[in-house]
Amino acid sequence: MDINKENWLIKEEGFDKSRIEDNGNRFLLGNGYMGIRGTLSEYGKEQLVAVNLAGIYDKVGDSWREPLNAPNFLYSKPEFNNTELSVLSINPKDHKVILDFYEGILYRESVFCVDGVNVRVRSERFPDMDNVHLIWEKCVIDADSAGRLTLNAGIDYDIWDINGPHFVRFEKEIGHDGSVSIKGFTQKDTEFVHVKEALVSVSLLNRPLAVKDDEKEKLLLHHGIFDIKAGETVSFYRVASVYTSKDTDAEPAISGEAISPEIYMEKKEAHKKWWALKWDNSAVKIEGDEEAERAVNYSLYHLHSIAPRHRDSMSIPARGLSGQTYKGAVFWDTEMFILDFFLYTEPRVARTLIKYRIDTLKGALDKAKSYGYKGAFYAWESQEGGFDACSDYNVTDVFTKRPMRTFFKDKQVHISSAIVFGLKKYFDVTGDMSLLSEGAFETVMECAIFYSELLVKKVYGDCYEIRDVIGPDEYHERVNNNFYTNRMAKMVFTEALRLIDKLDTIEDARKEEIIKKYNVKALKEIFEDASRKLYIPAPGESGVIPQFDGYFDLEDVSVDTVRGRLLDPKEYWGGAYGVASHTQVIKQADVVTCLSLFKDEYSSEVLNKNYDYYEKRTEHGSSLSACMYSLLACYCDRPDEAYPFFMKSASADIKGGGKQWAGLVYIGGSHPASEGGAYMNVLHGFAGINVKDGKLVASPKLPKNIKKLEFRIIFKGIRYLVTVEKEKAEFKPC
Amino acid sequence: MDINKENWLIKEEGFDKSRIEDNGNRFLLGNGYMGIRGTLSEYGKEQLVAVNLAGIYDKVGDSWREPLNAPNFLYSKPEFNNTELSVLSINPKDHKVILDFYEGILYRESVFCVDGVNVRVRSERFPDMDNVHLIWEKCVIDADSAGRLTLNAGIDYDIWDINGPHFVRFEKEIGHDGSVSIKGFTQKDTEFVHVKEALVSVSLLNRPLAVKDDEKEKLLLHHGIFDIKAGETVSFYRVASVYTSKDTDAEPAISGEAISPEIYMEKKEAHKKWWALKWDNSAVKIEGDEEAERAVNYSLYHLHSIAPRHRDSMSIPARGLSGQTYKGAVFWDTEMFILDFFLYTEPRVARTLIKYRIDTLKGALDKAKSYGYKGAFYAWESQEGGFDACSDYNVTDVFTKRPMRTFFKDKQVHISSAIVFGLKKYFDVTGDMSLLSEGAFETVMECAIFYSELLVKKVYGDCYEIRDVIGPDEYHERVNNNFYTNRMAKMVFTEALRLIDKLDTIEDARKEEIIKKYNVKALKEIFEDASRKLYIPAPGESGVIPQFDGYFDLEDVSVDTVRGRLLDPKEYWGGAYGVASHTQVIKQADVVTCLSLFKDEYSSEVLNKNYDYYEKRTEHGSSLSACMYSLLACYCDRPDEAYPFFMKSASADIKGGGKQWAGLVYIGGSHPASEGGAYMNVLHGFAGINVKDGKLVASPKLPKNIKKLEFRIIFKGIRYLVTVEKEKAEFKPC
Repeated sequence: MDINKENWLIKEEGFDKSRIEDNGNRFLLGNGYMGIRGTLSEYGKEQLVAVNLAGIYDKVGDSWREPLNAPNFLYSKPEFNNTELSVLSINPKDHKVILDFYEGILYRESVFCVDGVNVRVRSERFPDMDNVHLIWEKCVIDADSAGRLTLNAGIDYDIWDINGPHFVRFEKEIGHDGSVSIKGFTQKDTEFVHVKEALVSVSLLNRPLAVKDDEKEKLLLHHGIFDIKAGETVSFYRVASVYTSKDTDAEPAISGEAISPEIYMEKKEAHKKWWALKWDNSAVKIEGDEEAERAVNYSLYHLHSIAPRHRDSMSIPARGLSGQTYKGAVFWDTEMFILDFFLYTEPRVARTLIKYRIDTLKGALDKAKSYGYKGAFYAWESQEGGFDACSDYNVTDVFTKRPMRTFFKDKQVHISSAIVFGLKKYFDVTGDMSLLSEGAFETVMECAIFYSELLVKKVYGDCYEIRDVIGPDEYHERVNNNFYTNRMAKMVFTEALRLIDKLDTIEDARKEEIIKKYNVKALKEIFEDASRKLYIPAPGESGVIPQFDGYFDLEDVSVDTVRGRLLDPKEYWGGAYGVASHTQVIKQADVVTCLSLFKDEYSSEVLNKNYDYYEKRTEHGSSLSACMYSLLACYCDRPDEAYPFFMKSASADIKGGGKQWAGLVYIGGSHPASEGGAYMNVLHGFAGINVKDGKLVASPKLPKNIKKLEFRIIFKGIRYLVTVEKEKAEFKPC
Repeated sequence: MDINKENWLIKEEGFDKSRIEDNGNRFLLGNGYMGIRGTLSEYGKEQLVAVNLAGIYDKVGDSWREPLNAPNFLYSKPEFNNTELSVLSINPKDHKVILDFYEGILYRESVFCVDGVNVRVRSERFPDMDNVHLIWEKCVIDADSAGRLTLNAGIDYDIWDINGPHFVRFEKEIGHDGSVSIKGFTQKDTEFVHVKEALVSVSLLNRPLAVKDDEKEKLLLHHGIFDIKAGETVSFYRVASVYTSKDTDAEPAISGEAISPEIYMEKKEAHKKWWALKWDNSAVKIEGDEEAERAVNYSLYHLHSIAPRHRDSMSIPARGLSGQTYKGAVFWDTEMFILDFFLYTEPRVARTLIKYRIDTLKGALDKAKSYGYKGAFYAWESQEGGFDACSDYNVTDVFTKRPMRTFFKDKQVHISSAIVFGLKKYFDVTGDMSLLSEGAFETVMECAIFYSELLVKKVYGDCYEIRDVIGPDEYHERVNNNFYTNRMAKMVFTEALRLIDKLDTIEDARKEEIIKKYNVKALKEIFEDASRKLYIPAPGESGVIPQFDGYFDLEDVSVDTVRGRLLDPKEYWGGAYGVASHTQVIKQADVVTCLSLFKDEYSSEVLNKNYDYYEKRTEHGSSLSACMYSLLACYCDRPDEAYPFFMKSASADIKGGGKQWAGLVYIGGSHPASEGGAYMNVLHGFAGINVKDGKLVASPKLPKNIKKLEFRIIFKGIRYLVTVEKEKAEFKPC
């Protein structure tokens, strides 16, 4: 495949202060271990600089628990003739930031005019994809007249946090070889984040740099003064390592010898090669639609950047590694929206994501128990160990400023079905059943047990129901027999039954263990009974499936009418008294999501009627909505209607501009679920590729903008080149 | 029994404008057919004059349905020397209003000083207790100097309504014999209220009166001018009749011959005799506590005044006949709080109240059906035919002014158990089983079927539950396994079983009918199973019973703390986000009510512990709360703690002063449930009289204020004089 690399650049020309926050997400770098917001070296906490760390959390006071940001080891604010070279103090004469997302490198070039002298600052940076603790940076400065250049580069430990400060004390170390180190400890004195940095400067006079520790400004800086001539360059190269108390591998040794121009070049080449390999496997070529191609692959760039390849059991938070929004917690987004990309391009990552859920089963068992249930009730907002970070009060009433009791944690019971669905997809797409003996069996059993516990029936009736839940549409709380929830619960039962039938494939010792733990025969009877009798809302005369019991009795008004009833633009649409709560207006795809997943069980007429009915009534107030509508539109044979939903999903982060603040709380960040959803739209929707009866099938539905699709996927260990043109799809092993 | 009649007067001396609304309730007259607010003759709609009619309702536009007020046939505004004799225009020199609630007559005497002349207006009025369509009035005017007296007395048809105007047109008729008539028609042209009035004046010169119809002021008045000497009296006597399209008896003929001083005196004597007989049967003598005696008997006066004796199937609205508050609807108040008084003093009225529920079974079946249930789900706010007047939105959010969705109608399923409980009490106290073949059997069966429909169980569990309800405490919506609701449902099942066993006592034809309709054997099995397996929350280690599942997990703060969180004194404490909703603070007796009803099933220790626990956490935001606490305190052998709760209940209307307005809506009125509750406190609490195993038992608990109690009750057709002194109760047939 040929890649038009020019199309794979995200460029920002000129400096626009209002875009600082958004650009932090757009220019994000990451390697699964850390996410580095796309901010400039001279920025500080006010500009939302963050080195966001995966899987390590801290809680301060009564605030919610959130992931840690490390001290910023990419800080640098050079001076020319004692004038700071910073876009925050001088409007640059020329300014460019470029993310080459094919290479995975962020470039910056600014020209500052200082007393008539043009001073140019060029830098590039990239995280190490192999040794995920490391990040590399090069910076070159020159001027068109002679002058005095002061280097100030090092670690800024005045850290931006939403609910911080997380570090109660710092230990610093200054090496004699150009290295500095700062170790921040949280309240639990055993938890720390350790940042080490080595920096080497290159100039005509290779003079050593001093180190300054400005405790007031919280800056630990390499410092040097260079009197340069016109055209003469001063460069510095640095490598930084981050290491936390949660890490189990060895901490990299960072000394002056760790960095040199040669080492930097070598690492850069390796980095480019790493990405080229990734793209070879995963790039999506879209002929006839450069914008779509760019948006999709930019989405994939993000997914690659936050994939936890350094671990074999870790997941992806809802806002990736772009910051502390949503508590750095893992939602159903992972299994329902993000997983497919990795399943089809890098199954090892998919395995890691799933292993995270298997390994947090204990947390899910505990959560179920706390509600009086047996089985596994997974965390709605999962942090490490499966701890549910979701609080009882998630929304603030704009009128009273009081927290509103929400039931996301208590009632969104569909979360456990997402875990099973992820596992099922993993088995179906990879053919790898090894997880079965590594906890997957227990995970599915416990989820099925949980749903069997949820089942109620009228004592003198026959139908099994699931009452008092919240479905994907969060605007309607505490409903009965949500179509999505019930159908997914049924899927859990059938998957549990399928796995019980596979018990014999597990090696004897493990099998013995399982049989000792579970009365498999009794469970089998229960799951068979449950899956047979569980009530699944069916299409009525109109062909439309009620989202839950009584949905059609709600006021039937348009989204605009409901919006028009807002007294405050920021008020919550849902909850008990929200403008949408007692109407048929919904936040996001709900019935539509379920129909996308189980399309083969419904006639085209039913799919179309439900698409039409619900589309009109959906606010799309969640980034999880558009891609499901796009999928269903394809399954309805209406790919041109699918296209704008797909583009909305694919462009969520490349466009940016979404809501960044809720009051004083930063809620911006990247949208991995939209990114993954966009990939699903290409794969399942436009290319029409799905697994059926253990085989890949394709039923392409190309919108008119798209002439041809080309990408590689891996199915059951074999890599295929997929080419889709018109109504035809070709798979070639490659 | 000797009655200290002086103690049975409600007196208001001097005119205080601020007490007009409250006095409308305090001086109420009524005869079950109509309630006449205790307003003065010269008052108009602004002073909330109302002749409130039982059992006839009308709905205007989108407003809620409410009972009708008739045109005011007691209007009169005489003039002296062209000056209006009205407390609204002249501050009276002397002013007294006296309700003699032993006689059931309202007296008024005002002295106005007009240009130095004292003019005295004296009047008295009473509704006819035999012919309930009628009301009688006498008015006498004199002056201490000569002058010109103008009589203006007749019908004011500018009617006060909450959600009116209800009459869209009027037909008037003026007789030649001193009678006038006005017939108001509602939108449904077949519905009307017809008021006829005959008036005769008596003076030295018996001159006939003219009739004036002032269409602008909506006054149809008898008019006459009398030049009187000092000390000379002019009187008028009138009788008015009210008749509505809902009435089935004949309309009284009202002509000039219907009224004369002699007829008036005759009727007045009959009236006093009627009341003397009532009091002979029902007065409560409390030795040592005149205030309590006065308050209780005043409460009973109200109950007598609103008892629907003119019908054999009618009930009592929650605010009696004091106006249109609460839509004139019948609540659980009747069966749980009001019924006992009539059961023990006038069983025929109790039968009428119960017959209303039997006859509105159809409405209850329809309501259940609308929610997808079989059986009888009685109206939360029952109007005629059992129509549920309760709306989906009962509370207004003070912050947004938006209506809040409440679930009183949908989730207060305990209403049907109140009907069965009422029936059960009727059977137990009267011994009269005749209702069984007049619909009571079906009523109980259908209620039991309804509760059997409500029962759910975990599909793979054994325990029968009732989920998603509101108990008596309305601040906690949509809870599971409310103790009161579940225990009452169990009572319904056992009562149904008891009645099934009595099937053979029903005459054959009816029995055949019943057996044809119900599979009694199958129902018996269901009810036995249900009553055995229904989960009844039990006292935990602490001895306290949780009000519902998870109640003890709620924030445990004091009522004052919760009150302190109010941002607006008028905001609703309940609903989804109210200040009480997520705390243990409750609106009213809930567990305590249930324990009062089923006290024999629990140890004294449990009763005491629950009393102590819940008392601290109860706001008593409902007039149904205090009397239940009073009862339980007696059952806990703490009568001195019961006393203040009893006095609160007994004084609700004699003191008045409660909240009269919610915004622009009048919510004042009398409190029959408090009145009945006060009687229950005397009977069940202090005298300790209850039915056990078909017999009357007494276990008196007199508070120290009360030396001796004396009253008559009827039990299974025999009247007893009950005397309670110290720890001893005596019953003497009398």
